[in-house]
Amino acid sequence: MNYCLKFIRFFSLLLLFFAAIPAIAADEPDHSPNNKVQAISLTSQMYRDVRSGKLQLQGDHSAVDVLILQRNIPITYDYVATLMRTPNAFGEGPACVVCHSSNNPEHSYRGLDLSTCEGILRGSTESPQTPVIMPGNPEKSSLIRRLHSNRMPLGIPFFHPVDGESILKVKKWIDDGAKDDEVFDKSILPLFREKEAFGGDFSCIECHPSTNGLSLTSYRNIMRGAFYKERKKKGLAIKPVVIPGNSEASPLYQRLITNRMPPGISPGEDINHPNIQILTRWVKQGSWCK
Amino acid sequence: MNYCLKFIRFFSLLLLFFAAIPAIAADEPDHSPNNKVQAISLTSQMYRDVRSGKLQLQGDHSAVDVLILQRNIPITYDYVATLMRTPNAFGEGPACVVCHSSNNPEHSYRGLDLSTCEGILRGSTESPQTPVIMPGNPEKSSLIRRLHSNRMPLGIPFFHPVDGESILKVKKWIDDGAKDDEVFDKSILPLFREKEAFGGDFSCIECHPSTNGLSLTSYRNIMRGAFYKERKKKGLAIKPVVIPGNSEASPLYQRLITNRMPPGISPGEDINHPNIQILTRWVKQGSWCK
Amino acid sequence: MNYCLKFIRFFSLLLLFFAAIPAIAADEPDHSPNNKVQAISLTSQMYRDVRSGKLQLQGDHSAVDVLILQRNIPITYDYVATLMRTPNAFGEGPACVVCHSSNNPEHSYRGLDLSTCEGILRGSTESPQTPVIMPGNPEKSSLIRRLHSNRMPLGIPFFHPVDGESILKVKKWIDDGAKDDEVFDKSILPLFREKEAFGGDFSCIECHPSTNGLSLTSYRNIMRGAFYKERKKKGLAIKPVVIPGNSEASPLYQRLITNRMPPGISPGEDINHPNIQILTRWVKQGSWCK
Repeated sequence: MNYCLKFIRFFSLLLLFFAAIPAIAADEPDHSPNNKVQAISLTSQMYRDVRSGKLQLQGDHSAVDVLILQRNIPITYDYVATLMRTPNAFGEGPACVVCHSSNNPEHSYRGLDLSTCEGILRGSTESPQTPVIMPGNPEKSSLIRRLHSNRMPLGIPFFHPVDGESILKVKKWIDDGAKDDEVFDKSILPLFREKEAFGGDFSCIECHPSTNGLSLTSYRNIMRGAFYKERKKKGLAIKPVVIPGNSEASPLYQRLITNRMPPGISPGEDINHPNIQILTRWVKQGSWCK
Repeated sequence: MNYCLKFIRFFSLLLLFFAAIPAIAADEPDHSPNNKVQAISLTSQMYRDVRSGKLQLQGDHSAVDVLILQRNIPITYDYVATLMRTPNAFGEGPACVVCHSSNNPEHSYRGLDLSTCEGILRGSTESPQTPVIMPGNPEKSSLIRRLHSNRMPLGIPFFHPVDGESILKVKKWIDDGAKDDEVFDKSILPLFREKEAFGGDFSCIECHPSTNGLSLTSYRNIMRGAFYKERKKKGLAIKPVVIPGNSEASPLYQRLITNRMPPGISPGEDINHPNIQILTRWVKQGSWCK
Repeated sequence: MNYCLKFIRFFSLLLLFFAAIPAIAADEPDHSPNNKVQAISLTSQMYRDVRSGKLQLQGDHSAVDVLILQRNIPITYDYVATLMRTPNAFGEGPACVVCHSSNNPEHSYRGLDLSTCEGILRGSTESPQTPVIMPGNPEKSSLIRRLHSNRMPLGIPFFHPVDGESILKVKKWIDDGAKDDEVFDKSILPLFREKEAFGGDFSCIECHPSTNGLSLTSYRNIMRGAFYKERKKKGLAIKPVVIPGNSEASPLYQRLITNRMPPGISPGEDINHPNIQILTRWVKQGSWCK
């Protein structure tokens, strides 16, 4: 049995107990992320907000945003189960369960079983075993990341090798400590400026110049991570793309080797697809099976 | 337990017993609306009708019409369960169960649980408690009406207030008895002629002049209800849009405050969507769970 | 109980036992069609093939082809159950289960129940009882054929009679032995040349002249069957379209009377729809319910 998971659950329940004693009387577990007890109903809240003129439903995914995400409706596993089985659920492509329906790595890629809640919680059973969700933390859940993070450079073929010379150089540089040294200047930084260095048609800095969300133009800019200016303005910590010594945990390397799911999806397909947002919320709410 | 429902079922079964004794020997309950025993198979009937040249399959929803509705195939709850879970099942929009998956009004709008057959039969549990289906009577089932009745005026935003001055005037007039008096002449009838009286870009009578399905041009026309001429020609009773003294039961008022589902759907989307028709038939056949 | 089915299962298991003893130790049944034990994982194989540059993911259904079909991932009944319930799963049209959800021929066309795995294995229960799948043999499974075989001539209406004079002549000629005689010359061959002989706008030979996959221009060509040249080149046996004495088993006759499913689907819709291919593979792998 999965004692680790059981322990996590038990511990979460314990925390919940002390943090949200008033919620215990309620019929269902409280799924709101901050465990605040909602005193009034969703519908009453909605009408109150309508009266104050706060709400607007406009544009493509507005219904999901305003009625579901902003109000933090508990997402049920029942709906997650539907998403895993539905073709084109997250954009054009096969249903998740076609390729991931068993913990046997001979029958299912990565030994990953997305056809049951237990399988989702268990993650990839093939070595190296890795979880695909971290309950409560969608940013660290590859199940979520894989749905909206396009492999770089944009438009690179699904089966482009993940161990090409340039990719391995970046990996080694990170694993060796990601130092601002001669190796970086001579063999890493030039790769980001070079057309086709990683196999696509563009250089990295064409989309990631200094002024963009991530700048790959200098050591300093790279180490400042993603959305540096925006985050600084908001007083947020930096969001690193390089973790010195750990390529596996470094988005810079991961984005060079990890294909977006479902296989073959165009990088132009909406990374804010409403079903991706709903699945993300399910993970953030704790990815409960019941 | 829901004794009321049980009683309705029991009573229905009793009726069925005396009306259709020959059907009792059959393996499955008879779903045909008039409890007539079908002596020959669906397939034989179809081929007989093909030979007589009666059948045609043309246009978008013809298959559903000719093969399913005209032949009154029993719709199973199994398929209804699919519809409740499927995104875009009734036109562009989120799956029903995302917003309505619990009887707890803090987790589900109106405390409505559309994820189980029991939940559908139970209806909205939040005060004011209301059923969403009347088994056998789709016209009185809000689950059906909400899927094809556009809020008026057409194109009005989802969150436009439902308690604006004009709407409240209409409500009060109806609740006060919907009289043909000075109040009606001076403060109600003009609203139907005024552009933007209810918030949209058009006046009511632009779409509902004397010659249309419903005329809002005079007291007499309003009280004649919907499709007056057509219904008179067929010898049918009038279909009122105003029930004096009861705004809640009056379509004229309901259409001003009730948004079409799913949220954000364009009023231009087909109100005869095949899945709406199939769900409607399931209700008409008695909305059986098995 | 269905002893016949049980016997087939038992016999299959017996065969499997002797043919694939090494597989028995595995956790799950071996779904690969030749019962070969796969020594390495799907993911390892994929990466090995990526390194060798063998794999490409391009075009619409490439993901299904390269990642699922080429690697023969076991298709689960769980996904098949989804396909049977999903509207438009195999191209525009109602979900299979709407018309086929019961073994009672008064409630379901052909008494066919596609809502359970048992129902699929049982097939049409209405007389003449016929299986819809032959486990392991998708080519002989009407469930598959009906999804990608357009009724001939292309574009003929769904309800065009299946017992018109021309069709009955062809049937009789086949049942009488499909001889190369005066009947054939005078009353059969001319039908294939005549515009509208079978009700469509074109003659058969407009699409099936000598140089095409099937030639209906002479007795010899007809008896050479489909894809004669291609198959001869590959050393394959002929693929007959006429089985003398057996019109029911003859594709030439069957294609004149059998509508493609779902009802009303355009013949232009992709007969290689990825979900048709996935369902086909499920049948080829043995159509297992677990």
